[in-house]
Amino acid sequence: MGWEEIAADKRQRIEKSIPAEWRVDVKSIVGPDEVSFMDVPVKSGLLTPEELAITGSSAVELVTKLAKGELKSVDVTLAFCKRAALAHQAVNCVLEFFPELALAQAKELDEYYQQHKTTVGPLHGLPISLKDQLRVKGLETSMGYVAWLGKYDKEDSVLTALLRKAGAVFYVKTSVPQSLMVCETINNVIGRTLNPRNKNWSCGGSSGGEGAIVGFRGAVIGVGTDIGGSIRVPSAFNFLYGIRPSHGRMPYAKMANSMEGQETVHSVVGPLAHSADDLKLFVTSVLQQEPWMYDSKVIPMPWRQAEEDIITSKLQSGAGGLTLGFFNCDGNVLPHPPILRGIDMVVLALKDNGHTVVPWQPYKHGYAVDLIQKIYSSDGGQDIFSVLKESGEPAIPNIKDLVNPSYPKLDMNEIWEVQRQKWIYQMEYLEQWRQREADLGREIDAFIAPITPTAAVRHNQFKYYGYASAINLLDWTSVVVPVTFADKAVDKKNTDFKPLTEIDGVVQAEYDPDAYHGAPVAVQIVGKKLSEERTLAIAKEIGRLLGNELTP
Amino acid sequence: MGWEEIAADKRQRIEKSIPAEWRVDVKSIVGPDEVSFMDVPVKSGLLTPEELAITGSSAVELVTKLAKGELKSVDVTLAFCKRAALAHQAVNCVLEFFPELALAQAKELDEYYQQHKTTVGPLHGLPISLKDQLRVKGLETSMGYVAWLGKYDKEDSVLTALLRKAGAVFYVKTSVPQSLMVCETINNVIGRTLNPRNKNWSCGGSSGGEGAIVGFRGAVIGVGTDIGGSIRVPSAFNFLYGIRPSHGRMPYAKMANSMEGQETVHSVVGPLAHSADDLKLFVTSVLQQEPWMYDSKVIPMPWRQAEEDIITSKLQSGAGGLTLGFFNCDGNVLPHPPILRGIDMVVLALKDNGHTVVPWQPYKHGYAVDLIQKIYSSDGGQDIFSVLKESGEPAIPNIKDLVNPSYPKLDMNEIWEVQRQKWIYQMEYLEQWRQREADLGREIDAFIAPITPTAAVRHNQFKYYGYASAINLLDWTSVVVPVTFADKAVDKKNTDFKPLTEIDGVVQAEYDPDAYHGAPVAVQIVGKKLSEERTLAIAKEIGRLLGNELTP
Repeated sequence: MGWEEIAADKRQRIEKSIPAEWRVDVKSIVGPDEVSFMDVPVKSGLLTPEELAITGSSAVELVTKLAKGELKSVDVTLAFCKRAALAHQAVNCVLEFFPELALAQAKELDEYYQQHKTTVGPLHGLPISLKDQLRVKGLETSMGYVAWLGKYDKEDSVLTALLRKAGAVFYVKTSVPQSLMVCETINNVIGRTLNPRNKNWSCGGSSGGEGAIVGFRGAVIGVGTDIGGSIRVPSAFNFLYGIRPSHGRMPYAKMANSMEGQETVHSVVGPLAHSADDLKLFVTSVLQQEPWMYDSKVIPMPWRQAEEDIITSKLQSGAGGLTLGFFNCDGNVLPHPPILRGIDMVVLALKDNGHTVVPWQPYKHGYAVDLIQKIYSSDGGQDIFSVLKESGEPAIPNIKDLVNPSYPKLDMNEIWEVQRQKWIYQMEYLEQWRQREADLGREIDAFIAPITPTAAVRHNQFKYYGYASAINLLDWTSVVVPVTFADKAVDKKNTDFKPLTEIDGVVQAEYDPDAYHGAPVAVQIVGKKLSEERTLAIAKEIGRLLGNELTP
Repeated sequence: MGWEEIAADKRQRIEKSIPAEWRVDVKSIVGPDEVSFMDVPVKSGLLTPEELAITGSSAVELVTKLAKGELKSVDVTLAFCKRAALAHQAVNCVLEFFPELALAQAKELDEYYQQHKTTVGPLHGLPISLKDQLRVKGLETSMGYVAWLGKYDKEDSVLTALLRKAGAVFYVKTSVPQSLMVCETINNVIGRTLNPRNKNWSCGGSSGGEGAIVGFRGAVIGVGTDIGGSIRVPSAFNFLYGIRPSHGRMPYAKMANSMEGQETVHSVVGPLAHSADDLKLFVTSVLQQEPWMYDSKVIPMPWRQAEEDIITSKLQSGAGGLTLGFFNCDGNVLPHPPILRGIDMVVLALKDNGHTVVPWQPYKHGYAVDLIQKIYSSDGGQDIFSVLKESGEPAIPNIKDLVNPSYPKLDMNEIWEVQRQKWIYQMEYLEQWRQREADLGREIDAFIAPITPTAAVRHNQFKYYGYASAINLLDWTSVVVPVTFADKAVDKKNTDFKPLTEIDGVVQAEYDPDAYHGAPVAVQIVGKKLSEERTLAIAKEIGRLLGNELTP
């Protein structure tokens, strides 16, 4: 079979995995002039009011009710399966869909609960969506590569296994861009995944299928990965929270990956969700399973409540609780007006509530972006292009933005030099941080920054990864907080714009107030390495101040 | 100047750094038929009885007395300077000696104490010896390379700075093998460093200068580094304790190194000392300085007293407290009889005291040794040989054992494959560990293993690194415990020996009961990644049972 046939076969199999009774005519619900799919769940009539309520709940609410026996996993799972089926029909986000397996797993958990009157773990009965890098025994993990179709996994990834142990139910694996190294989601297997809020916008990438399905509430928590923004960009573009934990906190072992074995900058795995509390539920639940017992790269570091409490204490101490830095331009690319306004909103909300917010000078972000670019391309694209060659499928259009085969392959001594420079850069930035604290006479808890220069971007327009990737080079913990939506009435085009760089000109020229109207705007809250407890607590407070943190 | 002249000049400068009044005629103290230098401090008459007592104390005793004002740093520093001067004259272990700077630093600390009636930190006034990889502002760091002589450091390494902050005094930097990648200590700058117990034995390497000077009690704590045994082998050969912490626990930043930027297997830094308690003093003192604020590779993980307490509780719970695995052969090379007896002694001492000791099957150590060998040679020796070329100095004889330029230089995709294999191997071994615990029905706290196949080895005979290097590949915490001494009366040559491998034959053939008589025998206690608290506590108990842990 040629690659087109293999891909077509896979599409058919995905199609067939959706039961006939869950098929809807999306075009009859969303007219040709309409752009949003967000009303499909209600308008389709497929979900009962109870199922709409379930899929509209937070994960914390769901596990609480499941643990009390007020909800059954079968009902919760069925609701999310139906909504995920709608999500795929609307925005084309699914690479694996297996409601039967999910319902069987849910039934077992219900039976366990019935029998033992207790849960198997903190996620008992909760359906969780997986990016198609996580292996589930018996299923395919294609990662959007045609060549990898038809291979069935013999074991779970470590994270899959631990989530399973914690009680999670699996029902869907979602789409990614071919190679993962792109912040939009398109591949030759199922094509492009759309943003549920507007078919003209990207859902982000590489965890774009997760962004879309969680944004659509076809999942309450999705699992993504991030080596250059791949959790944070889909979170931002779908008005979600997302955490890029530091390397070594969450288990990545036995997942599929591009450039497997590359360790100069580690890809990390983490959740996307509708609230900081749901992110915390995920992280604490995984840590309770002691992932360091299974994945040698994970640090034996349980959830440190004392670290979270430091932030809580600062908040309870009253005025001037938190001290945060902020910047709206990294010196390479000025964000579009909606993002600049988003940063302002966050700063204002914090100041209005008595927190201390000070300007933060980005330290050599341009240098960091160049350095990490060298790392992405350090094998001259050999790993990725050899997988394409296997099936004969063509590369997706924007693959060369990050993994450019025209970049020279580095040799061993050159990569050592890059690694040395990375280490020095990380330490210089730590020194900056200390110096700023010394100047200010107080601890700086985190800084606020754009995560992309654009609100949810129009297709094929994602150009600049630097706001995300500089943080990957630093390996700092970053939590995305949704802020607001682009508004053509206030976010006017910047008419006297003078580009800082060539790419700055390209990005700014692309801004169009009408096209971006309504697009989600987010910021990232960046804390130091392995500061998940503190940074999540700060993100939760910012979300609360903005009215975007839904759980108490 | 040619490289010989540059090296000769350095030797002269080292010579001159020893004040005339501290010069002794070692040959008049140690006759031509004598082999040991251990009596030189007493016989030379250079040290007062008080100075002999000071240099015979533990670090814990010294810092306690310094903190109470019962000792002055100037007196302690002077005592160690004098004894270090003797050490160099006896065994040729010093690359930098700077007693004037040390005494000035000690004086300042005494004045601080006088004025504030308190210490600057937990190491207040304690002299600490540094391997010549650690930079001290204003001094040279040649690492035994002629090409690096004459370059003066503009800043301290991070560890130097933090030790300084904790109150440590610096007075000496010790010798290493050219390139560091050898477990004996010889270079073209000062030649060979001898074992103070017997001039025919190696002091080990690469932290061999540290092993020799601490073994001679010219230092109470020495700082070494370890990428393939370089802390543990000198500890073993000099009847010392030594800890190879896991990567990320102690700060390595801004130190000189071979193959700088190489991250596939990280070299780590840690102390050598006369007791587990002194190792703990060092580790806790450094962690109190929050090294993660300065070195981006350090994990924000303070000393976890609760982890140490788990072992203490097991010990206090009475019989059957600890559960330890043990093995005496890794399947590649059978240790010499003294080492086999050392393992037996440890097992017996533990069993006699009610602990549970079970056989431990080494998991694919041969595979691990081959894999790490590929990593050591992954640039085909380019980094090291280019430094030699700079000065024109020749390579030391045994450099090709680990860094063999006939090994092919790996390309990016090949090193990624090696890194992938490393990760899988680490996880398989974790699985073995879990499985053995499941079989046994209890937690296995650590395992006991040889650290070298020989007692303190004869010069140019160090052939097999595998007992040490397999642990580096795993990145597990390892603490060396001194056990006993080779004894020709009991450690007979193994007459019916059948080699497992070619190298096994070579190593075993080298055993000679007479030549090894009296040579230190040690074992390593290996715990999981980042288990410094537990593994040190176990090592302390084993040392106590053997009568070799000197502090209470």
